[in-house]
Amino acid sequence: MATDRPLTAKGLATRARIVAAAADLVFHRGAAQVALADVQAAADVSGSQLYHYFTDRDDLLRAVAVHRAAELVANQGPVDTLPALRAWVEANIALIAADNAAGGCRLGSLVPQLAETDPQTRATLSTAFHDWIAHLAAGLTTMTATGVLPPTADPHRLATLLVAALEGGILLAQAQRDITPMRTALEAALDHIASLATSP
Amino acid sequence: MATDRPLTAKGLATRARIVAAAADLVFHRGAAQVALADVQAAADVSGSQLYHYFTDRDDLLRAVAVHRAAELVANQGPVDTLPALRAWVEANIALIAADNAAGGCRLGSLVPQLAETDPQTRATLSTAFHDWIAHLAAGLTTMTATGVLPPTADPHRLATLLVAALEGGILLAQAQRDITPMRTALEAALDHIASLATSP
Repeated sequence: MATDRPLTAKGLATRARIVAAAADLVFHRGAAQVALADVQAAADVSGSQLYHYFTDRDDLLRAVAVHRAAELVANQGPVDTLPALRAWVEANIALIAADNAAGGCRLGSLVPQLAETDPQTRATLSTAFHDWIAHLAAGLTTMTATGVLPPTADPHRLATLLVAALEGGILLAQAQRDITPMRTALEAALDHIASLATSP
Repeated sequence: MATDRPLTAKGLATRARIVAAAADLVFHRGAAQVALADVQAAADVSGSQLYHYFTDRDDLLRAVAVHRAAELVANQGPVDTLPALRAWVEANIALIAADNAAGGCRLGSLVPQLAETDPQTRATLSTAFHDWIAHLAAGLTTMTATGVLPPTADPHRLATLLVAALEGGILLAQAQRDITPMRTALEAALDHIASLATSP
């Protein structure tokens, strides 16, 4: 933040509006195509307002990554039964299908775009993925406790497969402008987890 | 290409040197950080030489995507037995581990960077992934013919899972600067394929 003073409620709202506008532009155009002037116009703020909240463009892109990570945490539902896991898959497919995979993953597409140029953003994305995998692993651990999965199942390994299949599936869907590879990859990952299940 | 005349052997070599230099810069810095002047310096060519081969920066980036797609085809080995599939996984992990996942996948990282801004590049990437999945599916189809996998195994579905786990695993590894999630995701995908195998 460009100011050390605590923000007022109005200030926080303005800052959030700028970040949301920037995140939307980055999603639809790619980060490289987003200038501060575009964000100013989209958020309906002046340049001096923008610089009041962000030191520069990199600082704003950092806030976009934090915003996408927070969004992910806010949308984490239960994943501790096989039906809940299937619902998680369907919700993610519906989200990406809404844009026919254009723009890719709101969080994952930031990795190739921003991770190499900004270590702080890379750390934000790394933590977000770490927490996402941990959330899924916790659900799968519950499934071993409730006997849905056998004690030999490795929750962290299965959770990593799920997130990788999701991110890789979205990448393929974005390239092909077709949601099918995302669905196929995630259903294959679910096949694997279901095949480990000890009871119908 | 900026010229319609056929290129001489020397011209082809110069063009290839420019594309290789651009691909290397895009891999290490990200496409957004690569200006034509950087490519000129790295390939040791003049601006007029560069414009002799490419109409503009987008045209050069298109050639980078074609180059990465061709590289992928050139490096496709046999994947028609379980040991060959494991070797394919290890070779890919070794390639990404060499840079500790910095830069991500040479092909896949181009999707979030270039697919939204250039339809021709998106089509190049889409075809490359389509062919990659088809190559793996052909290997898995052979495995069903030789009895390694049962007739009920779905080669295209398993091939899609493999490429998605690889691309998603690289994305996680790039964010975390740690090859582990790539290995974990791919080994989990191999677990699934091995669990379908009809004989030891």
